[in-house]
Amino acid sequence: MHDVWVAGAAMTRIGRRSEPLTDLMAEAAHAALRGAGLEGPDAIVVATMNPEEFLGDGNFASHVATHLGFAGVPALRVETATSSGAAAFYAGFALVAAGLRRAVLVVGGEKMTHLPTPKVSELIGRSIDPYERRYGATMPALAGLVTRALLARHAVTPREMAQVAVKNHAHGAKNPLAHFRQPLTVDEVLESRMVADPLRLLHCCPISDGAAAVVLAADRARVRVAGIGQGTDTLAVRHRRELTSFPATQDAARAAYAMAGFGPERVEVAELHDAFAPFELIALEDTGLVPPGKAGRATLDGETALGGRLPVNPSGGLKARGHPLAATGLAQLVECVWQLTGEAAGRQVGARVALAHSIGGLATSNWVTLLEAA
Amino acid sequence: MHDVWVAGAAMTRIGRRSEPLTDLMAEAAHAALRGAGLEGPDAIVVATMNPEEFLGDGNFASHVATHLGFAGVPALRVETATSSGAAAFYAGFALVAAGLRRAVLVVGGEKMTHLPTPKVSELIGRSIDPYERRYGATMPALAGLVTRALLARHAVTPREMAQVAVKNHAHGAKNPLAHFRQPLTVDEVLESRMVADPLRLLHCCPISDGAAAVVLAADRARVRVAGIGQGTDTLAVRHRRELTSFPATQDAARAAYAMAGFGPERVEVAELHDAFAPFELIALEDTGLVPPGKAGRATLDGETALGGRLPVNPSGGLKARGHPLAATGLAQLVECVWQLTGEAAGRQVGARVALAHSIGGLATSNWVTLLEAA
Repeated sequence: MHDVWVAGAAMTRIGRRSEPLTDLMAEAAHAALRGAGLEGPDAIVVATMNPEEFLGDGNFASHVATHLGFAGVPALRVETATSSGAAAFYAGFALVAAGLRRAVLVVGGEKMTHLPTPKVSELIGRSIDPYERRYGATMPALAGLVTRALLARHAVTPREMAQVAVKNHAHGAKNPLAHFRQPLTVDEVLESRMVADPLRLLHCCPISDGAAAVVLAADRARVRVAGIGQGTDTLAVRHRRELTSFPATQDAARAAYAMAGFGPERVEVAELHDAFAPFELIALEDTGLVPPGKAGRATLDGETALGGRLPVNPSGGLKARGHPLAATGLAQLVECVWQLTGEAAGRQVGARVALAHSIGGLATSNWVTLLEAA
Repeated sequence: MHDVWVAGAAMTRIGRRSEPLTDLMAEAAHAALRGAGLEGPDAIVVATMNPEEFLGDGNFASHVATHLGFAGVPALRVETATSSGAAAFYAGFALVAAGLRRAVLVVGGEKMTHLPTPKVSELIGRSIDPYERRYGATMPALAGLVTRALLARHAVTPREMAQVAVKNHAHGAKNPLAHFRQPLTVDEVLESRMVADPLRLLHCCPISDGAAAVVLAADRARVRVAGIGQGTDTLAVRHRRELTSFPATQDAARAAYAMAGFGPERVEVAELHDAFAPFELIALEDTGLVPPGKAGRATLDGETALGGRLPVNPSGGLKARGHPLAATGLAQLVECVWQLTGEAAGRQVGARVALAHSIGGLATSNWVTLLEAA
C-alpha cells in the first residue's frame, strides 16, 4: 500500500451562505489545489449528503466537476449520511493507496439554510431507521434519548455537558471561518430553550452551509495519512446493546490505530463530532483519548481546551464552527492539517499527530482518521 | 497494486417488483456471497441513485448493511447517476487493490415502478444540467437530440437502430431474469409510438426494479478484473463539441485497455449501455469494438447477435433485461462473469474476455470495465 499525503487543505467560511453550493465547493477546492501547487487533480471525490432534496440537483459529482472547470476529470460521489466527508476522504485515500491515482481532490459541502428548519430536520431524519422515524424520532430526539441514558447512569453531569458547548464556542471565537464566534457561559447553555429534553438549544450544533476540500497525493507532502478506520452499527437505535457509548466509534478508532501502528497516547489534538454536546464526551472515551468515565472531569478541568493537555475541537467543532453535513468530516481534517502545519493562527496547538472523528446518522457509520506531521 | 478477483456474482429478476428494495438487494447480495463461499464481507459498497426520493430513505449504506445482517461491517454508498453500479464496483476494486480489504461486497439496486412514470422521469432528470432542465430537457429529449444528429450525419439508419432493439429483445427472451422476454420485429419498433422524435417507445429501455451484486476479493477466483476506466464530460450537453460520440466512453475505454495491457481485439462479449437503442451503436464505436462508422452495418449483419463475431448484450441489455439504474452497472458485470464462467445457460457465448460499459447521466460519467477468465 502506497503512502498517502495531504498536499492541500482548505475550506470556506461556515454559516448562512447565499452563494450556490457549487460556488462554495469551488472556493474550497481551488484553494486546496493552490495549496498543493496543482493545476488540477487526476480524480475527484465529491461528498454531499442529499443534494437531490436540499437543492433539487442530482448527478452531483459531474455537476461539481464541471463547475470546477474539470469536466474531463473522473469524479464520483460518496455518501454515508452526516459522515460523508470522512467517507469521501477514505475513498480518495484508497485510490491513492492503490496506486490508481496520484492526486485526488476530495471536496464536500452542503447548503441547507435556504430551506425552513422543519424541512431540513425532516430531510436529515431520513438517516433514521424507518420504523423509528414513523414513531416521530428525529435526530435531536434520539440524541436526547442517549443523553437521558448518560444522565441516568451518572456518566455525565449537566455542568460537564454545558462546558463542552462553552469550550467550543470559546474556540470558535478564535476561528475566522466559524459559524458562531461569540462566547457562551454555562448558565446561558443551561437556560437556553429545551429542544429534546434534556438537550437544550445550546447543546446542539446549528444548521450551516459551507464546503471543505483536501488534495490527497502520492508525492510526499507535509502531512501523512497515518490511519483510517470505519465502524458501523445497526440502523435502528432500539437494536443497540447500549446507548451510552458508540461501538461504531470504538471500532473505527481500533482500526485507525492499528493502521497507524500507534495508539491514542500520541494524539495531541482532536476534532470530535459534537453535533450534540454530550457526543463529544462519548467520543473522548470511545476513541481512548481519555479513560472511561473521565471525559466530563477532563472537560471541566480544561484538559480539552486550548492550552490544555489535549485540545479538542480547536476549530469550534460542529457546535461553533458549524455543521454543513458532508463538509464536516473534511472540515475537521482541514483543521487537523492546519494544526499540524502551523496554519491555525490564533488557536495553534503545536501538535505532531491529530485525530478526526465523524459520525454518520445516529452513530451508524463513524470514522476515525489519524494525520501525522511528516 | 494487488490483483482483484470477482469471487461471486448474482442478481435478481428484473422488472416490476413488489418487494422492498432492501429485500431485492439482500437476495442479490446473499447469492453473491454464497457463490464466493463467504459467510460475510469485510466491507460493503452500496450503489443506489436516489433512495431519498425514490423511497424516502437516506443513510442507505447503513440501511442495506443492517438489512443484510451485516450491521457491523463498514459500508459506504457511491453514486454517479445511472452508472452508480459501475462506480461502486470501481470503489470496491480500489479497496481490494490497495490491500485495505480482502472481500468487498458491492451491491446495487433501484426500485421505481411504485411511482408514477412522470415522477420517475422528473427524478431521473435531476441528472441533467439545471439550465437545460429548466427549458424542459428530459433524458429521452436529450437522447432524441443525439439521435437526430446521428441521422442528420447519416451515421446510422432507422433500420439499424431498430435492429438493436430487435436483437436485444431476442437475447432477453433467453434470459430468465430479463424484464422483457418477448421478441420484437423491426416493424414493431418502427411503428411504436413516438417518445422523443425520432426515438420511439421500443427504442427506449423500460423503468425497472431490481438488484445485482458481486464480491470482489484478494484471493484468486475464476474471473480477474483486468482493467477499469472512467471517462467524464461536461454536465451540459450544449457545451459538448460533438453529439454523435461520447468522449466519456472513449476516455473510459482508453484507461481500461491501458490498465489491462490489451485492446478491444481481445474482447469476445460485451454488455453496452443501450438505454436508448442508438447508444449501443455509439458505444460499439467509442469502445473500439467495431471500426468508426461500422456499428450499424455490424448490427444488421448479425455480428453483435448471439452466434455472431462479438455478441453484445447477451443479457438483453438495458432494453430487454431492464434498467434498474444503480443495479445496471453491476448487472452488466454479473452477466459478463456468467459468460466467462459458463453460467449463462441458453445464451452462453464462450468467451475469455468481457467488456462492460455504463453511462451516467447524459454521458457525463461513463465506465468501461474489462473482466478476464483466469
